[in-house]
Amino acid sequence: MKNYAIIRIHCPDQSGIVAKVTDFIHRNNGNVLDLDQHTDRGEGRFFMRVEWDLANFTIPQEQIETVFQIELATPMQMEWSLDFTDRKSRMAIFVSRASHCLFDLLARHSAGELDVDIPMIISNHKDLEHIAEKFEIPFYHFPITKETKAEQEAKEFKLMEEQNIDFIVLARYMQILSPEFTVRYPNRVINIHHSFLPAFAGAKPYHAAHSRGVKIIGATGHYVTSELDEGPIITQDVNSISHHDSVESLVQKGKDVEKIVLSRAVKAHVDRKTLVYKNKTIIFN
Amino acid sequence: MKNYAIIRIHCPDQSGIVAKVTDFIHRNNGNVLDLDQHTDRGEGRFFMRVEWDLANFTIPQEQIETVFQIELATPMQMEWSLDFTDRKSRMAIFVSRASHCLFDLLARHSAGELDVDIPMIISNHKDLEHIAEKFEIPFYHFPITKETKAEQEAKEFKLMEEQNIDFIVLARYMQILSPEFTVRYPNRVINIHHSFLPAFAGAKPYHAAHSRGVKIIGATGHYVTSELDEGPIITQDVNSISHHDSVESLVQKGKDVEKIVLSRAVKAHVDRKTLVYKNKTIIFN
Amino acid sequence: MKNYAIIRIHCPDQSGIVAKVTDFIHRNNGNVLDLDQHTDRGEGRFFMRVEWDLANFTIPQEQIETVFQIELATPMQMEWSLDFTDRKSRMAIFVSRASHCLFDLLARHSAGELDVDIPMIISNHKDLEHIAEKFEIPFYHFPITKETKAEQEAKEFKLMEEQNIDFIVLARYMQILSPEFTVRYPNRVINIHHSFLPAFAGAKPYHAAHSRGVKIIGATGHYVTSELDEGPIITQDVNSISHHDSVESLVQKGKDVEKIVLSRAVKAHVDRKTLVYKNKTIIFN
Amino acid sequence: MKNYAIIRIHCPDQSGIVAKVTDFIHRNNGNVLDLDQHTDRGEGRFFMRVEWDLANFTIPQEQIETVFQIELATPMQMEWSLDFTDRKSRMAIFVSRASHCLFDLLARHSAGELDVDIPMIISNHKDLEHIAEKFEIPFYHFPITKETKAEQEAKEFKLMEEQNIDFIVLARYMQILSPEFTVRYPNRVINIHHSFLPAFAGAKPYHAAHSRGVKIIGATGHYVTSELDEGPIITQDVNSISHHDSVESLVQKGKDVEKIVLSRAVKAHVDRKTLVYKNKTIIFN
Repeated sequence: MKNYAIIRIHCPDQSGIVAKVTDFIHRNNGNVLDLDQHTDRGEGRFFMRVEWDLANFTIPQEQIETVFQIELATPMQMEWSLDFTDRKSRMAIFVSRASHCLFDLLARHSAGELDVDIPMIISNHKDLEHIAEKFEIPFYHFPITKETKAEQEAKEFKLMEEQNIDFIVLARYMQILSPEFTVRYPNRVINIHHSFLPAFAGAKPYHAAHSRGVKIIGATGHYVTSELDEGPIITQDVNSISHHDSVESLVQKGKDVEKIVLSRAVKAHVDRKTLVYKNKTIIFN
Repeated sequence: MKNYAIIRIHCPDQSGIVAKVTDFIHRNNGNVLDLDQHTDRGEGRFFMRVEWDLANFTIPQEQIETVFQIELATPMQMEWSLDFTDRKSRMAIFVSRASHCLFDLLARHSAGELDVDIPMIISNHKDLEHIAEKFEIPFYHFPITKETKAEQEAKEFKLMEEQNIDFIVLARYMQILSPEFTVRYPNRVINIHHSFLPAFAGAKPYHAAHSRGVKIIGATGHYVTSELDEGPIITQDVNSISHHDSVESLVQKGKDVEKIVLSRAVKAHVDRKTLVYKNKTIIFN
Repeated sequence: MKNYAIIRIHCPDQSGIVAKVTDFIHRNNGNVLDLDQHTDRGEGRFFMRVEWDLANFTIPQEQIETVFQIELATPMQMEWSLDFTDRKSRMAIFVSRASHCLFDLLARHSAGELDVDIPMIISNHKDLEHIAEKFEIPFYHFPITKETKAEQEAKEFKLMEEQNIDFIVLARYMQILSPEFTVRYPNRVINIHHSFLPAFAGAKPYHAAHSRGVKIIGATGHYVTSELDEGPIITQDVNSISHHDSVESLVQKGKDVEKIVLSRAVKAHVDRKTLVYKNKTIIFN
Repeated sequence: MKNYAIIRIHCPDQSGIVAKVTDFIHRNNGNVLDLDQHTDRGEGRFFMRVEWDLANFTIPQEQIETVFQIELATPMQMEWSLDFTDRKSRMAIFVSRASHCLFDLLARHSAGELDVDIPMIISNHKDLEHIAEKFEIPFYHFPITKETKAEQEAKEFKLMEEQNIDFIVLARYMQILSPEFTVRYPNRVINIHHSFLPAFAGAKPYHAAHSRGVKIIGATGHYVTSELDEGPIITQDVNSISHHDSVESLVQKGKDVEKIVLSRAVKAHVDRKTLVYKNKTIIFN
């Protein structure tokens, strides 16, 4: 497996950023594989993702961060992150009772399409344990009540820390996370909401969609923040419906959109193609 | 031009409705051209649209309504309407300053694709008068202020009554109608809202969409009721966007969806393919 | 489980068909649950699907076919079929090496969303045997070479007959079936082709799409006929792509469309909502 | 109006291209407004579009081409073009009898959404002359027969040269252009084909789509080359259809897709966001 560096940057818009960053890579013998930049003129903010091959890069991998900080990040007031493709992300999946998103993620993982490790599936119900077993992934059951919530979440944190979990996917997990989740995993908890947000936030969106008589339903993959269903949107998609659809058929049709949208959002995150700024998500090419 | 009858029915669900209605047509020598029915089990309500050729129909056109009422509608507690295709609907268009929906409607009308008469374009601004002139349609300017609103609307009602207007299309008309509009033209005022409702109801939906960071925008054609942006939805469509889009480019991209969605909604109405029940719209084939 | 009758009919267009069929059901105390009809004026052909509750139906289930044939089908020259919902369809899945469609079908089946029995998975490769095991479905390996094809297919036929297979799903099965398949299972073999047919029929459609520089890819679920990729289309869907996509990323994106489209086609077939006439498929509501 | 430079480049992939080009702009005091690059690894080819503000650029506008050629284009074997936004493109529209695409282009132009000059509409029929008059654009009638084709096209070339036409839009022009068109206007003739190519190339695509029983129709905006319907695709879109659609309704539904797709293709061209390489079109952000 080749080792590439991926850098994601945002900073105040200013002249010469692309020139300086690409010159840094070029002059240290890196070969740029992918570069995508975006300037938000309204915000006066510059965003960039660059991926380069480390094969002949003259700065040792463990020193890149320091050198880049001094030479470029500090002078240009960058907020930035650096990742290397030689290390797999470690993903925890949270589920409740609906199986479609879990199956979709595990099927992709099993087919080698999702380049992560999945050390655990966590659930507040035992219903999907048999799926975890099918795919030989450890399943942890943490039933949640109002009274036990804090205590059970503490156990989940402990478990995830022991297993070096990088990010969490809520694959139709029907519990509201306590704020500590987003403090510990900022922009690292991905949820699928079963509506095209901001329409039908909250519980039972298909009932609400049926009641309102909409002609399109959708799903939204987003990062979880402390405000329910208000986090930065990663991806959305929709499906046409008609007056023939009952709530039950909306739920069925919705599942197809949900699982595809969630898997797309997870893939964008895993490929380090997302960058959150002020509750919006840049999706790089 | 052939003369067809179109009947739209809804009534409590009960056994034998289709059999009785189609038998009525068949035994009076009518030839069914199109039939579409729908049963809403949750509501226990039956809906049907039937179109039949009047060429050999043995009941005279002007008596169909009476006969049908006695034989079928009363016994089966139907609410229903009957239309004939030998009479064109008369449509008033209301606009403000944005031209795209107006152009789209007039271009279709000019090409013979929209089978209505358009005796008037009404506007609170003079900006689009030149378009009305291009297409040789009378243009009426009714500027609206808080103070003059009631008086100006009264003039609009008078004008529309004189001209036997059947229904009204708000082609990006940026004034909230007084409740009297919907009293006079119930399920006969079609609006285009520039978002996929219920997301971003109210003013400036593209600003709101940009601010929320959604990945999809849309438009909604709906009947106007006394509650703003809450009327029964006729049709919706969407367009993908990205972080590259500014508010201005959302407005641009949105226009393409708006005009297509509005024209589809108008066409469904003109073809008598819509039926409103409890704030939802059945769209027949 | 309630027992419903589903009748699918096509016949020369003539006056009174709906009236007579619905009267037949009504007068024998059946309650129509769903009715969808279509008239193809160009062909002069009438199509209908009716579903009714058998709870109080006065004709015994095993005699319906005979009575209907005499009273209606013969006089009106109908071609028709009758099914009852108290018997599950039995489906064989054929696969080769790609797992995404198989996973999608089995995940739905496992979640109770696909109301069929799956007595067997047949493959010309052993690659996906582990998936069959996960879902505890018998897996049969029939490697195919030019020389062994006829002999192996004969074994497949025998096996499917013993197991009373009703229809076959080719879930990315990379072998061309011999004509005998379509003789034995006319309009009962469903294939997923990985392009929006008729574009890119034949092998390697994603390579062809990449080479042609299209901006949209798609997938087609269709019944298999003796002519490759020419059978009646059940459902299609598409996905936007760009110049950034390599053949590999087209294949990846295509998988999402393929599995959804195939499952939709299978569901339409299982629900008896398809009717093939002259190489086209009517899809009833 | 601000004056920006837009450069579009392609060259063999090599290390340091972005660094050198952005450094060139930066060190001459240009401010990069937009940059989009793409590397086609299969082809070993690099593509880039850069837009920068000329306000403080130290190289005089008329010398940029020469300096860039010497400093960068020659050493890096670039094929490239340079445009300035202070000059409007001049567009000729060719039509026959269908009005929808023409109306859509002119409505946008009239609303200030299409930043071009339109000095002429050319047609082989007089049907749409009244639309040209509505929008006060000169209309030229060049009827074409087999015998007069060469002669009439010669007149068209003369007229377009006199009027400094930059590019041509075939807005449902139902004549095959002679090869000389593409010699004179390489990648400068934009056509709308009324199918999602490569499906249904050639005449009467909606008839073919109806006959094949597809469930999706589409339209393709592409550059015209000497091979009919084989030129590089700029943009495509689709619309769902059903067995209810006749050829006539396909034509109607198709018009909505055609006009939107054509206008999108024209806008991408006008904004210099297209780059053709080996019969494919890169569409920059």
